[in-house]
Amino acid sequence: MALRIAVLTIGDELLNGEMADTNTAAIAASLGAHGYALRESLTVGDVEGDIIEALQETARKRDVIIATGGLGPTADDLTARAAARAFGRRLALNEEALSGIRRYFRERGRQMHPRNEKQALLPQRALILPNPVGTAPGFLLHHDGREIFFLPGVPEEMIAMLEGSVLPHLRQRDGETFPMQQRVFKIFGIAEPQVEETMQRVALPEGVETAFGVEYPMVHLKLRAAGEDAEGLLDGAEIGVRKALGDSLVAIGEETLAGNVARMMTAAGKTLALAESCTGGLIAKLLTDIPGASTFLDRSAVTYANRAKQDWLGVGERILEEEGAVSDACALAMARGARRAARTDLALAVTGIAGPAGGTAQKPVGTVYIALVAGDEEKVERYRFGGSRDRIRLLTAVTAMDWLRRYLGERISPG
Amino acid sequence: MALRIAVLTIGDELLNGEMADTNTAAIAASLGAHGYALRESLTVGDVEGDIIEALQETARKRDVIIATGGLGPTADDLTARAAARAFGRRLALNEEALSGIRRYFRERGRQMHPRNEKQALLPQRALILPNPVGTAPGFLLHHDGREIFFLPGVPEEMIAMLEGSVLPHLRQRDGETFPMQQRVFKIFGIAEPQVEETMQRVALPEGVETAFGVEYPMVHLKLRAAGEDAEGLLDGAEIGVRKALGDSLVAIGEETLAGNVARMMTAAGKTLALAESCTGGLIAKLLTDIPGASTFLDRSAVTYANRAKQDWLGVGERILEEEGAVSDACALAMARGARRAARTDLALAVTGIAGPAGGTAQKPVGTVYIALVAGDEEKVERYRFGGSRDRIRLLTAVTAMDWLRRYLGERISPG
Repeated sequence: MALRIAVLTIGDELLNGEMADTNTAAIAASLGAHGYALRESLTVGDVEGDIIEALQETARKRDVIIATGGLGPTADDLTARAAARAFGRRLALNEEALSGIRRYFRERGRQMHPRNEKQALLPQRALILPNPVGTAPGFLLHHDGREIFFLPGVPEEMIAMLEGSVLPHLRQRDGETFPMQQRVFKIFGIAEPQVEETMQRVALPEGVETAFGVEYPMVHLKLRAAGEDAEGLLDGAEIGVRKALGDSLVAIGEETLAGNVARMMTAAGKTLALAESCTGGLIAKLLTDIPGASTFLDRSAVTYANRAKQDWLGVGERILEEEGAVSDACALAMARGARRAARTDLALAVTGIAGPAGGTAQKPVGTVYIALVAGDEEKVERYRFGGSRDRIRLLTAVTAMDWLRRYLGERISPG
Repeated sequence: MALRIAVLTIGDELLNGEMADTNTAAIAASLGAHGYALRESLTVGDVEGDIIEALQETARKRDVIIATGGLGPTADDLTARAAARAFGRRLALNEEALSGIRRYFRERGRQMHPRNEKQALLPQRALILPNPVGTAPGFLLHHDGREIFFLPGVPEEMIAMLEGSVLPHLRQRDGETFPMQQRVFKIFGIAEPQVEETMQRVALPEGVETAFGVEYPMVHLKLRAAGEDAEGLLDGAEIGVRKALGDSLVAIGEETLAGNVARMMTAAGKTLALAESCTGGLIAKLLTDIPGASTFLDRSAVTYANRAKQDWLGVGERILEEEGAVSDACALAMARGARRAARTDLALAVTGIAGPAGGTAQKPVGTVYIALVAGDEEKVERYRFGGSRDRIRLLTAVTAMDWLRRYLGERISPG
């Protein structure tokens, strides 16, 4: 019989409209990827009686509870106290938790506030779950054959501890189940209905299920399989998916487009310079999110002002005056100038109108030029992107990175 | 006494990681804007027993339940049947609901599928709530002084019925309410416990409540007040908060640090050049997220390679060889070089080690230098930031923007 797992999220901000609860969906997704489904989830505010009641009632019905939030140092963080009362324990200073909090501050050369000691006041017989990212320790209580995990509400800390502590624990408890395996295919340049239509023509092995979703501006295709041979089934399915999606498949699994571009640039031993106008540094930011980007990325000129385009990229005054800063001639001159200045193998340039102001009849908001120079090749193209300033900037950056991926031309290897 | 309102969302897809529940947050936001807070929310799957149990237990504890999902025409839509069983009613064909469904299809010139008739099978004595957007009718059950609303799960339909039927009902029941007002104060540079301690010394007007939260790397202080004079109470409280938090208060309400820096730069008529190494374009990206950033931002040199620092910023070879690219001398030379090249009023430079690799004993991962040159002033400082690559980069960018805010020195006006 499947483990009955419940999630309990705690915090007034989740109930008064101030903040959406993203932890439940993140936990559901992480557990789902390992073959577990939640049986229920609930949310209560920073009200001690409500937390106690929720813990007791849920523990009565479920095998495992994953509770998040309310472990911080301030007065409205009530989870540890409520947990102690719910399961009839005393609240005591936990030395292991305290030394963990002290270590966190010491390693960062910061002074620990006495108030942070409160975070080590935990129910007796709590097992400490290390927090690799922040100060709040998590803990695990055993009660009547139930396991109740308490994690901080900060998403980054919560997910690190879910994957570092909770999942290994569940796998151990659950013995030799074969969790559902999932493989995500990230697709750029075709819309969701077309992806779905394409997939209807692909014969997948028996036992492989498909699901679709949008992570703007990518479409995600998810294949799932269970059982001992799940990986084998997904490997078989992947052959058909790659063939059907071809060049629109930009990343698989944990891979990202930026990560793949970085990997391909490094493998090819090529260097890159960027010249960014409307993206304002976003392309450089996305590529330098990847550790080791300095291996291939030489520089980016974020040239908002025309003078900057002239100084650093040598864009001619004639181009700026006659064609304008948003033109194919300017994009190409920016890319050429960046390559000349940086002496790199490749240079990529973007210029456009992200809005909301600045559009004209000839060049409405969303007009973007992308240029790539590499070896003897030069390419420049005009796009018309829709949506908000944020979406236009993101779509420009992703399209530009996708040009690099296609230029480098390598097929993506499984994640 | 405040109405105890609970939300119950129903659907397997919300628990297996396939889809995030956005309805709870939308309901919380809509109710919050009208002065109601949720007391709890919960989610169960398409399991009849679980739905029945959730309805019965929640009805025991709360005054109002808003349930969403499971009203569709397919076999896994079980909510109406579960509601009937939970509250001891028979399931019967509701003529009013049926004619509403028939009208929906007729008005759109579409054929009604026989399966849609199932959507009119409702618990006896249900009050029909019209659905202006889709086929599934909603309904309201009265049980033991409780009111239980059932709405479809499709967000667009749900929200239309929440605002068209549920809110008018609550207002009628509750008389005239004065919605809770909230004001958020965004604080940078002091930790949450210190903020809380500081706030304990501030005398707030009667009826103003405080709450604290972290939106890394900011601390958020939230003040809330209800009643006819809520805005006046918050205005009064704001005076004390500004005085107590002083220069650590970087934004209020919908404002952001980047937005305030942009506004202050524009108001001061100053221009800015950036030179970014470890942040890789992130500072430029955050400032150009703000429409109109071209008014003050001239350019940013994202100089990853040493050669780029030499070419574009004129950083001397001696500095790079003897002090290294991560040094106070290099940060200062980068800022001076950016200002010289761009002829701007201000220039800001950052260089550091974001990790995970590249740290040394003298300069561990997280070592960052920030330099600002403006007028005759020059300032450079060394930081030691903790956490992941992402956090180090974000903290560097936010600290650098905060230098600009402090330099521009203006007090922030209410949001």
